[in-house]
Amino acid sequence: MNAYELIKKKRDGSELSEAEINYLVGGFVNGQIPDYQMAAFLMAVYFNGMSVRECCDLTMAMVESGDVIDLSQINGFKVDKHSTGGVGDTTTLVLAPLVAASGGIVAKMTGRELGHTGGTVDKLASIPGMNLELTKEEFIRIVNTVHVSLIAPTSRLAPADKHIYALRNVTATVDSIPLIASSIMSKKLAAGADGIVLDVKTGAGAFMPKYEDAVELAKTMVNIGECAGKKVVALITGMEQPLGNAIGNAIEVQEAIDTLGGKGPRDLVDLVLELGSMMLVISGIASSGSTARKKLETHIAEKKGLKKLAELIKAQGGNPEVIENSDLLPQPKLKIEIISEASGYVEKINALEVGMASRILGAGRKTKSEPIDPSIGILLKQKVGERVHKGEPLAVFYSDGDRQKIAAATSKFLSAYTIGDQPVEPPKLFYARVIGDNIEEFS
Amino acid sequence: MNAYELIKKKRDGSELSEAEINYLVGGFVNGQIPDYQMAAFLMAVYFNGMSVRECCDLTMAMVESGDVIDLSQINGFKVDKHSTGGVGDTTTLVLAPLVAASGGIVAKMTGRELGHTGGTVDKLASIPGMNLELTKEEFIRIVNTVHVSLIAPTSRLAPADKHIYALRNVTATVDSIPLIASSIMSKKLAAGADGIVLDVKTGAGAFMPKYEDAVELAKTMVNIGECAGKKVVALITGMEQPLGNAIGNAIEVQEAIDTLGGKGPRDLVDLVLELGSMMLVISGIASSGSTARKKLETHIAEKKGLKKLAELIKAQGGNPEVIENSDLLPQPKLKIEIISEASGYVEKINALEVGMASRILGAGRKTKSEPIDPSIGILLKQKVGERVHKGEPLAVFYSDGDRQKIAAATSKFLSAYTIGDQPVEPPKLFYARVIGDNIEEFS
Repeated sequence: MNAYELIKKKRDGSELSEAEINYLVGGFVNGQIPDYQMAAFLMAVYFNGMSVRECCDLTMAMVESGDVIDLSQINGFKVDKHSTGGVGDTTTLVLAPLVAASGGIVAKMTGRELGHTGGTVDKLASIPGMNLELTKEEFIRIVNTVHVSLIAPTSRLAPADKHIYALRNVTATVDSIPLIASSIMSKKLAAGADGIVLDVKTGAGAFMPKYEDAVELAKTMVNIGECAGKKVVALITGMEQPLGNAIGNAIEVQEAIDTLGGKGPRDLVDLVLELGSMMLVISGIASSGSTARKKLETHIAEKKGLKKLAELIKAQGGNPEVIENSDLLPQPKLKIEIISEASGYVEKINALEVGMASRILGAGRKTKSEPIDPSIGILLKQKVGERVHKGEPLAVFYSDGDRQKIAAATSKFLSAYTIGDQPVEPPKLFYARVIGDNIEEFS
Repeated sequence: MNAYELIKKKRDGSELSEAEINYLVGGFVNGQIPDYQMAAFLMAVYFNGMSVRECCDLTMAMVESGDVIDLSQINGFKVDKHSTGGVGDTTTLVLAPLVAASGGIVAKMTGRELGHTGGTVDKLASIPGMNLELTKEEFIRIVNTVHVSLIAPTSRLAPADKHIYALRNVTATVDSIPLIASSIMSKKLAAGADGIVLDVKTGAGAFMPKYEDAVELAKTMVNIGECAGKKVVALITGMEQPLGNAIGNAIEVQEAIDTLGGKGPRDLVDLVLELGSMMLVISGIASSGSTARKKLETHIAEKKGLKKLAELIKAQGGNPEVIENSDLLPQPKLKIEIISEASGYVEKINALEVGMASRILGAGRKTKSEPIDPSIGILLKQKVGERVHKGEPLAVFYSDGDRQKIAAATSKFLSAYTIGDQPVEPPKLFYARVIGDNIEEFS
């Protein structure tokens, strides 16, 4: 076996065996297969794809390149959730405590992401005192008592994926569904959950703008999960505009608190109920989606999810009083209303550009070492379909007062909004569920 | 401009501009573009191809990466010939003196090739005293007096091609017609001729087994030559069995001497007459192929080509007496007849396997530094279509007496021959001429 033959095999459209995939991944990680051969292989995969079996083998090879988290000391079915990326995604902050309050077990490791805003860990870090670097023992103890814990990865999860991703990123081989699916699933499977609900975004603001591609990605990930003996289902959701109203870190924590308290934005609440139902169903806690949904709605109304969030914060060393007193969260130096220059209906909001505006303000990072100011962000006041008058605020910037950043972010933000004369419907949020080999499209 | 964008552009099927191609080739040669990006780019080219314009630009970028031989001090139209590789190709050794004897100017640089046997330079090196490392001044002086000289390259010809080829060779991106065409043409154009006749081999023993691919390669090379302002035509010829009877170095020199003396094998003579005619026509020496052919036939009959070979050998320091006395060429320790194990008609001879047998015997090399024993080779006694009886020799091995090599080569050689019951026609030698945009197929 040698790398040349395997590149040629993939180039010529043949399927690689498990042993061949292990040889490639192992050889690349230990430096025996040079990056130029891996780059050629990845480009051949870009063109010729990979079978589900190959994706499974690639995923497992990447999982086995690092540590696999052993959650066997946690009682019950551990359920995880993953979104493929979008803008203004407060979902995890709401879902994790709400599902735990409803009987689910959420033991989640989540990275510090690059991009428009930080990852879930960055958002939680804006809560004073919150410890996100627990030992494995503390993590397990908290999950066993509170039924939910969210921490930064304690171990080397799927390092092969990290190496391969770095190469894909400079060789124009990121946009390959088999490679994306294997990359995501390798990290999720290494993190040790028994079941995973995937939220695959589609539409203008999403990583996979085309619906067909989102379906393909979802199916591939569900198949990989099944290969690995996990319960995995997917939901395909729209990202035609930012989800919810908050984009940032502390500001998203506040939005999560509001949502768990029954005052969340409609789209965020709807998404949380749908994803949460799927999490409860695959956990075996609810027998149907509608039962699960009622349970979750009740737990919002009774503020049980909010109480669970307070427990989670307390268990991880944070100040649970933030739930009652939002002044305890980091506050921006300046809040600035961004005013509409026209009257009409909000026709479109380019989510990526809103995300970029928030990064310009200082809510996100470009390199892993860059600090994030947790108080910075954008609060949307108008979403697609709403009527707006000239001079009314479209949004509020939470800013550190840097005028240059504000000017640049304002210009980027305003270019993201399209305001027209005609009334428009809010964009579609739910596209389809992917369960096993079935695609159930929403009407 | 950056390499990532250019990889993506090619990956997505767009055409690169001249500036973009220059940026890639230049950046790769000076080390600014890493090999993994070039590898991904080459694989994208493998899948999406390149337009004729891109091939021209790539070729010229590779030509300009090194020295371009200035042959302007040589009077007249300098004509070159290139074969895309096959097995047992004595053509250049016959053509160069014969065309020169007929009024053509042949100033040819030719490499020491890897493979089954050496390159033309290696074959000539078997002539005692022959100097193939002339200075440029000596080379020009000899061409201006003798009208033909064959030497090893004196300069750095197309180093970008060398670097890119080395990468293609380990990333399964060799078999791409635009890349093959650009690679060959960059070396030919750097070598400075005014016109080139290309001999593109097709069939089982050729680099381009499929006829359609050979036509595509020929058209691309002809187009590149025209871009560069050169007269370039191509002949597509069959390589279903080895050409001529000799495979080796001294043994091919002997076959060239025999052929120029009027005693050449039929297929080799036919090919020499066809390629030679095209060389005379593009040189403006003959007005038509048939006039040119008559001239060449006459010059074989009158031994003018043979005399020209003697002049060439003498001018480059070799002993011209080899022409009359074959004992002056390196002689093998042992000549061994390889006997047919069956009676019947020679149905097929796998040229590649015969080539491998000759390399096993010691006539070729795997690495550039490996020495070649010039006395070693294989002389075929039976070609496709001939009747053979059990116990008759199929070939004679010219060997250094190493029993292990002989045993391995014999087994490889015998597996190359298929002997059947039914009479068969000799395989087709001439497929098509490619002149401008016209493909003239032979009937």
